[in-house]
Amino acid sequence: MEMTKEKTTIVLFSGELDKAIAAFIIANGAAAYDHEVTIFFTFWGLNTLRKDEVVKTNKGLLEKAFGWMMPRGANKLGLSRMNFAGMGPKMIKHVMKKHNAMTLPQLIELAQEQGVKLVACTMTMDLLGLQQDELIDGLEYAGVATYLGDAANAKVNLFI
Amino acid sequence: MEMTKEKTTIVLFSGELDKAIAAFIIANGAAAYDHEVTIFFTFWGLNTLRKDEVVKTNKGLLEKAFGWMMPRGANKLGLSRMNFAGMGPKMIKHVMKKHNAMTLPQLIELAQEQGVKLVACTMTMDLLGLQQDELIDGLEYAGVATYLGDAANAKVNLFI
Amino acid sequence: MEMTKEKTTIVLFSGELDKAIAAFIIANGAAAYDHEVTIFFTFWGLNTLRKDEVVKTNKGLLEKAFGWMMPRGANKLGLSRMNFAGMGPKMIKHVMKKHNAMTLPQLIELAQEQGVKLVACTMTMDLLGLQQDELIDGLEYAGVATYLGDAANAKVNLFI
Repeated sequence: MEMTKEKTTIVLFSGELDKAIAAFIIANGAAAYDHEVTIFFTFWGLNTLRKDEVVKTNKGLLEKAFGWMMPRGANKLGLSRMNFAGMGPKMIKHVMKKHNAMTLPQLIELAQEQGVKLVACTMTMDLLGLQQDELIDGLEYAGVATYLGDAANAKVNLFI
Repeated sequence: MEMTKEKTTIVLFSGELDKAIAAFIIANGAAAYDHEVTIFFTFWGLNTLRKDEVVKTNKGLLEKAFGWMMPRGANKLGLSRMNFAGMGPKMIKHVMKKHNAMTLPQLIELAQEQGVKLVACTMTMDLLGLQQDELIDGLEYAGVATYLGDAANAKVNLFI
Repeated sequence: MEMTKEKTTIVLFSGELDKAIAAFIIANGAAAYDHEVTIFFTFWGLNTLRKDEVVKTNKGLLEKAFGWMMPRGANKLGLSRMNFAGMGPKMIKHVMKKHNAMTLPQLIELAQEQGVKLVACTMTMDLLGLQQDELIDGLEYAGVATYLGDAANAKVNLFI
C-alpha cells in the first residue's frame, strides 16, 4: 500500500500582514511535517504576491485604480488591527526582527523552497485586473475547482 | 456499498460583500462537484439573507436599532477593505458586471437551485431581533448543534 | 476496537468580542457532543486570555506599549463591526444579558469545565511580550507544531 501524504490547504483571502504571516507560519509548519500544502490566494490575499516594483502593464482605468489603491507586495501590507496609519506594521516588523523571526518575504521564500504550492486565483486576477507579470515567480494559476479538488483530499482546510 | 457524497460546510460569520461572494463561489463550486453543501449564517453573516424591503415587525427598541444599523440584504453589504464609504462596493460591482461575473443575489439564487442548504442561526436571530419574515425564502432555521452535526461529517469546513 | 473521539480545533487569531464568542460557542457545542476540542490562541486572539487586572511585569518599552494598546481580557474586547467606539460591545452585552446568553468569561469557564484545551501560542507571546502571569490560569503553552498535530487528526478545523 502506498503511503499518501497528509494534505493541508489554506485560502488566503485577507490582505493584511498579520494574517498573511499566520498563513505562512501554518503552511511552513505543515510542510515541515511533510504535508502537501496548497495556499490559494484570492481577493485581497493576492496582494501578498505582488512584486515590489511597478510593472508596466496595459490596463483600463479601473484596473489601474485598483492597482494603485492596493498594497504592492508582502512588504506593503497593513495590519488587521492597530494599523495606526502604518505604525503598527512597523512595530510588528521591529519586534519580529528583534526576535529573529522570519519576515513575510522570507516566509514566502521558505514556503517555495519546501514545495508549498502557491496558487493565484485567476478569477480574482481578472476582476482586479492583476496580470501574471505583476506577481512573483513560481506561482500556479487556477480557479476554485482546483482549490476544491485539493481541499476535498485534505484534512486541514483553513480560510484566512 | 452506498456511495456517499462529499460534504462541505461554511460558517458565514462576516457581513461583508467580498466575503459573502467568496463563500458563495466556494459553495456553488462544491455543489457543482456534487458535494452536499451547507452554509450556516451567524452574526453579521445573517445580513446577507435579509430582504431588500423594510418588513413590518413588532420589535423592541434595541432590536429596531440593530435592524436600522445593519445592512438590509445582499445588495447593501460593504467591503472588508477599501470600502471608501460605499465607493469600493460600487467599483467591485462595476468590474463584476464588466466581466459578466454573477452578482451576490444571483450567486444566492444559484446556490438555492443547486440545493445548497442555507441555515440561519436561530440564536443570533434572537440576539439581534431578526425575524423569519425579514429573511429571504427557502432557508432552514437551526442552531450550532445542527452545524456541528454537518461539519463532523464533512471534509471541507470553513469559517468565513 | 477502541472508540476514538471526534476532534475539533479552532485557531482563534482575531481579538474581537463577537469572533471570540463564536469560537467559544462552537467549541462548547463540540465538547458537549463529546469531541476533543482545542482552541489555539494566536496573535490578537491571545487578548481573550488576558487577566482583567494589570500584572506587574519586567518588560521592555515596546512590549509595554503593546500591552497598553491591546485589550486586557475578555471583558475589554471590541466588535469586528459596528464597534462605534465601544457602544457596539455594550449593546451586544446588553442583548446577551436580556436573552440570558452566557457572557464571554462564562463561556471560557464552561469550556475549561468541559475539558476544552486552551493553548496559548508561545511564539506570539514572545513577539508581543505577553508573559504567562498576565494570562488566565489553566492554559497550555505550545507552538504551531502542537496545533498541527491536533489539526491533522481532527475533522473540523476552523480559523477564526
